[in-house]
Amino acid sequence: MPSLIRDRATSTSAMLAVFGDEALLRAALAFEAMLARAQAEAGLIPASAADVIAAACAQLPDVETLADEAAHAGTLAIPLVVIIRKRINDPEVAKLAHKGATSQDLADTALMLQAKAGAALIVEEARRLEVALAALAETHAATPMLGRTLLQAALPISFGLKVAGWLQGLSGALARFQCETAAIQLQLGGATGSLAGLDGQARAVTDRLAVLLDLPAADTPWHARREGLAGLASSLAILTGAVGKVAGDIALLAQNEVAEAFEPRVEGRGGSSAMAHKRNPTGCQVALTAATRAPHLAATIVAALPQQHERGLGGWQAEAPVLADLFQLTHGALAAMAPVIEDLEVDTDRMAANLAAAKVGTDMGESEALVHRALAAYQKDR
Amino acid sequence: MPSLIRDRATSTSAMLAVFGDEALLRAALAFEAMLARAQAEAGLIPASAADVIAAACAQLPDVETLADEAAHAGTLAIPLVVIIRKRINDPEVAKLAHKGATSQDLADTALMLQAKAGAALIVEEARRLEVALAALAETHAATPMLGRTLLQAALPISFGLKVAGWLQGLSGALARFQCETAAIQLQLGGATGSLAGLDGQARAVTDRLAVLLDLPAADTPWHARREGLAGLASSLAILTGAVGKVAGDIALLAQNEVAEAFEPRVEGRGGSSAMAHKRNPTGCQVALTAATRAPHLAATIVAALPQQHERGLGGWQAEAPVLADLFQLTHGALAAMAPVIEDLEVDTDRMAANLAAAKVGTDMGESEALVHRALAAYQKDR
Amino acid sequence: MPSLIRDRATSTSAMLAVFGDEALLRAALAFEAMLARAQAEAGLIPASAADVIAAACAQLPDVETLADEAAHAGTLAIPLVVIIRKRINDPEVAKLAHKGATSQDLADTALMLQAKAGAALIVEEARRLEVALAALAETHAATPMLGRTLLQAALPISFGLKVAGWLQGLSGALARFQCETAAIQLQLGGATGSLAGLDGQARAVTDRLAVLLDLPAADTPWHARREGLAGLASSLAILTGAVGKVAGDIALLAQNEVAEAFEPRVEGRGGSSAMAHKRNPTGCQVALTAATRAPHLAATIVAALPQQHERGLGGWQAEAPVLADLFQLTHGALAAMAPVIEDLEVDTDRMAANLAAAKVGTDMGESEALVHRALAAYQKDR
Amino acid sequence: MPSLIRDRATSTSAMLAVFGDEALLRAALAFEAMLARAQAEAGLIPASAADVIAAACAQLPDVETLADEAAHAGTLAIPLVVIIRKRINDPEVAKLAHKGATSQDLADTALMLQAKAGAALIVEEARRLEVALAALAETHAATPMLGRTLLQAALPISFGLKVAGWLQGLSGALARFQCETAAIQLQLGGATGSLAGLDGQARAVTDRLAVLLDLPAADTPWHARREGLAGLASSLAILTGAVGKVAGDIALLAQNEVAEAFEPRVEGRGGSSAMAHKRNPTGCQVALTAATRAPHLAATIVAALPQQHERGLGGWQAEAPVLADLFQLTHGALAAMAPVIEDLEVDTDRMAANLAAAKVGTDMGESEALVHRALAAYQKDR
Repeated sequence: MPSLIRDRATSTSAMLAVFGDEALLRAALAFEAMLARAQAEAGLIPASAADVIAAACAQLPDVETLADEAAHAGTLAIPLVVIIRKRINDPEVAKLAHKGATSQDLADTALMLQAKAGAALIVEEARRLEVALAALAETHAATPMLGRTLLQAALPISFGLKVAGWLQGLSGALARFQCETAAIQLQLGGATGSLAGLDGQARAVTDRLAVLLDLPAADTPWHARREGLAGLASSLAILTGAVGKVAGDIALLAQNEVAEAFEPRVEGRGGSSAMAHKRNPTGCQVALTAATRAPHLAATIVAALPQQHERGLGGWQAEAPVLADLFQLTHGALAAMAPVIEDLEVDTDRMAANLAAAKVGTDMGESEALVHRALAAYQKDR
Repeated sequence: MPSLIRDRATSTSAMLAVFGDEALLRAALAFEAMLARAQAEAGLIPASAADVIAAACAQLPDVETLADEAAHAGTLAIPLVVIIRKRINDPEVAKLAHKGATSQDLADTALMLQAKAGAALIVEEARRLEVALAALAETHAATPMLGRTLLQAALPISFGLKVAGWLQGLSGALARFQCETAAIQLQLGGATGSLAGLDGQARAVTDRLAVLLDLPAADTPWHARREGLAGLASSLAILTGAVGKVAGDIALLAQNEVAEAFEPRVEGRGGSSAMAHKRNPTGCQVALTAATRAPHLAATIVAALPQQHERGLGGWQAEAPVLADLFQLTHGALAAMAPVIEDLEVDTDRMAANLAAAKVGTDMGESEALVHRALAAYQKDR
Repeated sequence: MPSLIRDRATSTSAMLAVFGDEALLRAALAFEAMLARAQAEAGLIPASAADVIAAACAQLPDVETLADEAAHAGTLAIPLVVIIRKRINDPEVAKLAHKGATSQDLADTALMLQAKAGAALIVEEARRLEVALAALAETHAATPMLGRTLLQAALPISFGLKVAGWLQGLSGALARFQCETAAIQLQLGGATGSLAGLDGQARAVTDRLAVLLDLPAADTPWHARREGLAGLASSLAILTGAVGKVAGDIALLAQNEVAEAFEPRVEGRGGSSAMAHKRNPTGCQVALTAATRAPHLAATIVAALPQQHERGLGGWQAEAPVLADLFQLTHGALAAMAPVIEDLEVDTDRMAANLAAAKVGTDMGESEALVHRALAAYQKDR
Repeated sequence: MPSLIRDRATSTSAMLAVFGDEALLRAALAFEAMLARAQAEAGLIPASAADVIAAACAQLPDVETLADEAAHAGTLAIPLVVIIRKRINDPEVAKLAHKGATSQDLADTALMLQAKAGAALIVEEARRLEVALAALAETHAATPMLGRTLLQAALPISFGLKVAGWLQGLSGALARFQCETAAIQLQLGGATGSLAGLDGQARAVTDRLAVLLDLPAADTPWHARREGLAGLASSLAILTGAVGKVAGDIALLAQNEVAEAFEPRVEGRGGSSAMAHKRNPTGCQVALTAATRAPHLAATIVAALPQQHERGLGGWQAEAPVLADLFQLTHGALAAMAPVIEDLEVDTDRMAANLAAAKVGTDMGESEALVHRALAAYQKDR
């Protein structure tokens, strides 16, 4: 049993559901059902057969049994197709299920359906965090505080300039992620990516299946060409890192001796099992935990790029759980930090006092102008 | 919901259970129950209170609710201690639960209890693979085959020499892992690792708790001193890499054009959803998938070493799911390859034919002597 | 002393020069000289002072001494600015050198000037490899060979389909890299990124300096906003992985028992110090070595994203050597594989024979059409 | 040209010399010279031939030419052996150079000779840091300060307890490293590790060569069995992480608002090119930079474990530069932090004031006893 308690600690219920077994099986069954329907529409199989196959894909099989069977077989497709075929009385129709497809077609397409749903959640939550950061930067465009470099007092800035930097980092990372979601495509290549087995109708079937599953069709099958997934994974890690930067700075500002900004008080959050007085930066904790893990997950997928021949051994099989972790961690980080920024407690008096104590003057340079420049760029890109 | 199907693909049911929610909660509750008992034995709390607390730790709480609560609170200990205290009628006794402990004491000790159970499974399966490799090396100590370097034909070796290399790599990695399991220790430090809150009886409580939980006591609390975990994680990744070496070589030998060794035929394993003729190296697939992921997981824990002050933010919180993944993948790799080696199909005729075709002579050098030297070293270390 | 022998093994002299000390110092001195000139043009300092400062930046200082001094100071800028100022007789003018800038402005801008030169080399060599792959795919659009999945014989493809996949992977990775080079920007922020110290003329100075150094100006300083560098680093690793995929496949095809494709014979390349008969896939070796290292280097930069406050401690300082390694490895991989593909020896008879031996029929599906589709997409994107 | 300035920023001249080209070539030539001598002593070649070969190994060849030639050939051994043979007039004797050895024998042994020298420097500097930490812990065994968890004020500890934790982390990591140096062994296997080509005298030659080079002999060649190197690399990364923990804590304590401990003032160190008032934690910067990079370098070597067959392609070739980087970074971190600890400025008044301000009482628990326990363990293990 994987651990819900451990996964939930740095992710959201919503994203865990997107990458859960039920969603995986719904996606896998949708692939098989819609493949049959696309083939019927392209004239490869009778429409009645497609109906029967689709009906056989309606019900979710038992997860635990299937997990064991898939582990034994070495791929989810094999036991799942067996189950679908068993549900079909007519053996001629049963044979038509999964026609022209290979295990990786199902695995990749299911993963992409999950990634698409996950990406929507990511974008939504990132936009929420952007909005909160933009508002905070605006509010504090001219609030003086001590700028700190190499963890030492440097020269004055405005708090808004710091927040604008957070915003720009997040926006840059989000733009990259949205660009990389172009890799979320239908996979249909058949055994070796030659699209044999589709009776010369591969393009028609592919295009139709793409519409039915609402996934873009790839120019050609991408079984062993994974640079798109590597880019997607990297962009998730970078996005998490951009959120981690916000979290790290807030945790430093919230230190008792600095005391310039604090996570909002939320009933039951950030307490200590040993110290009643504590108010832990729990949102920051989630984001920093995610930022600790994400780079290594992305590196896994990048390192797996040299996959052998037409479909490799041990490379693509490692991607799905890692990509799931990346989506889960990134969403967890965003969802943890959005409310923190929305209701951040800012102590401008303490900022002023710390700045004065540092005896570095009051010249914030062009902080305010830079904030407005950053906000203008953000507004323009929206 | 985490995905059982995805986790099971590269791990075993046994190891998934060790790191599952039920095991986690049992370990966490055992910590609380035995802490009370140890304190009673040291005279800190009444024995009757310890009985009441232990009784309140007997039943597992609902996992889904607790997962949400722990995510909200930022730590499992907080809602779990609330549950335990709610189960206790006497408020004075309820307050004694979790006395002197901090959230990380519970989290680390529970993880260590799981790691201990996991380590036993790892050692058992690694020994099984060692035995199989030793027998295979012995059998083929003098079987001629082509040695290959840089993926090109080189000079003759015996197949036993190749297998002896696998064995030595595995044994070296296993020895390192067993050494690193010394890091599996009780954690008890209280809020800041000073052992305040145990009424001056810290050593007695610690030693007694160590006995009750059957975990070694550490010299001093290790809340922010994680080099032991980093060593343990690294050794798991190295062990998986050593198994991956075996898997990679077998997959290369099983290529149709080489055809010198094959995974055993197992009903329902290694098939293809698209090609009836295929016999995929599924055990190797599992091991190579694990070896693709493990180094990055270990690096996560090593990278998290500079944790702040007495207990850090975002570092140790990242370790538990990663360490769980490492145990799961390593056990999956071992359990996949042990039966492969036990029943490996070896085609010595094809080995001879490939060797002859390479026209590199027949001098195997000291292959046979080296095999016996390796086997003697293995026997000695057992 | 860093090792030229070790660095040269997986990189080119051209790229090593781009990231060498001389180029670093030229870039750093160009920053200081052009900063003065830009300030003169914006009216901050006299034109004569800018001339004197520029003259003081003309000569390279001694590398070994400077390396020691920079290591002692903790940053290159400090001893370098001391050297520049010492070269100026007029103390009032000397003080104007480095005006308004901070150490990281110099370090980042110098790195970006090097990255820009490096990126040009990368694109040139990647295009060369693309051209070679496109020609090879075209030639073998209909050449039958065995498709292989999970390292086992699967169904027929054309060799052109395999090569088209390599091309598409490379092109996708190159497009991503070119997109990410947008991060190669001027850095000018002053001590805390507030642009204090430029007498209210920060924008004019920045824009002018950008023109003089031929680097894009950033909207705002990016001292602690490193997602651009993380994206650039990731794209280099992905590009290397795409080349590694080509190399891995060729090394597998060149195995003696497969013998379908070989690196071209090049006098003195790929020999063995022990076996006269050997013909090692040396180009593939370089690319695979690079692909082994690159993902971890990119992960370093992604992991460093949460840099503290206005300019961090230990994060950005880790980036420069790692980014240099990435450029060096990627160029090494590309330059190793371009000639391999240009003159790849292809044995179509052996391809046919291996295909026949596998007894999987002759249906290549839509291989040829897919090749042309891929080539059309490549032509369109050029 | 690799960059001395960049490498020197996080390493020492001493360690850079150990892994520089000159040391590499001396080691490589020593391998060839001593191999001949060992073979002469075992009666394989005439003593006079060994003398001639040794003489031909006395002078270092030109590094730049050799670097190009080695890159072209794909291995250092080929051009180096050519150079050696050209220096020998008698062609019969010339042929005897490199007898029975393969390129990787030379490469691995040279790397191990460098690693051995590097390990001695590491141990020396780590011991120096241990001594400084032990003294500091002793001094402040009872100095009260605020304990901080999750970057928030927690409960009191003694400063000595914090330092004792640093010491224990370092000692644990150093012990692991010293254990892993057992992997530093002679490599001699010949083309495929069968020790063919040594006329049945392999053991005698190996044992004699081991003595001559002062490296332990391995039981059997380890060309494709790299778990020892992976363990060594991991232990270096963990050691760097343990130093990074110290550096991270000191950097946090040195924040202006905390102001409890500071790096010693060293003329010319830690200044700012923009702010005269600054005193940057430069030693901490070096250690944290190293700790940012090291885990990814170790992961590279762990990930390369599944090397193909008798000697792989792209795996071991990636190890040498990465291992060199690890030694360099680790030594840089240790050498940066030893003087920081030796002369750390501690402000016990400020510690007391910050503690009082946090209003968390004065109970340090068993801090002092724990310090003495840790110091006793350290003394015992020395």
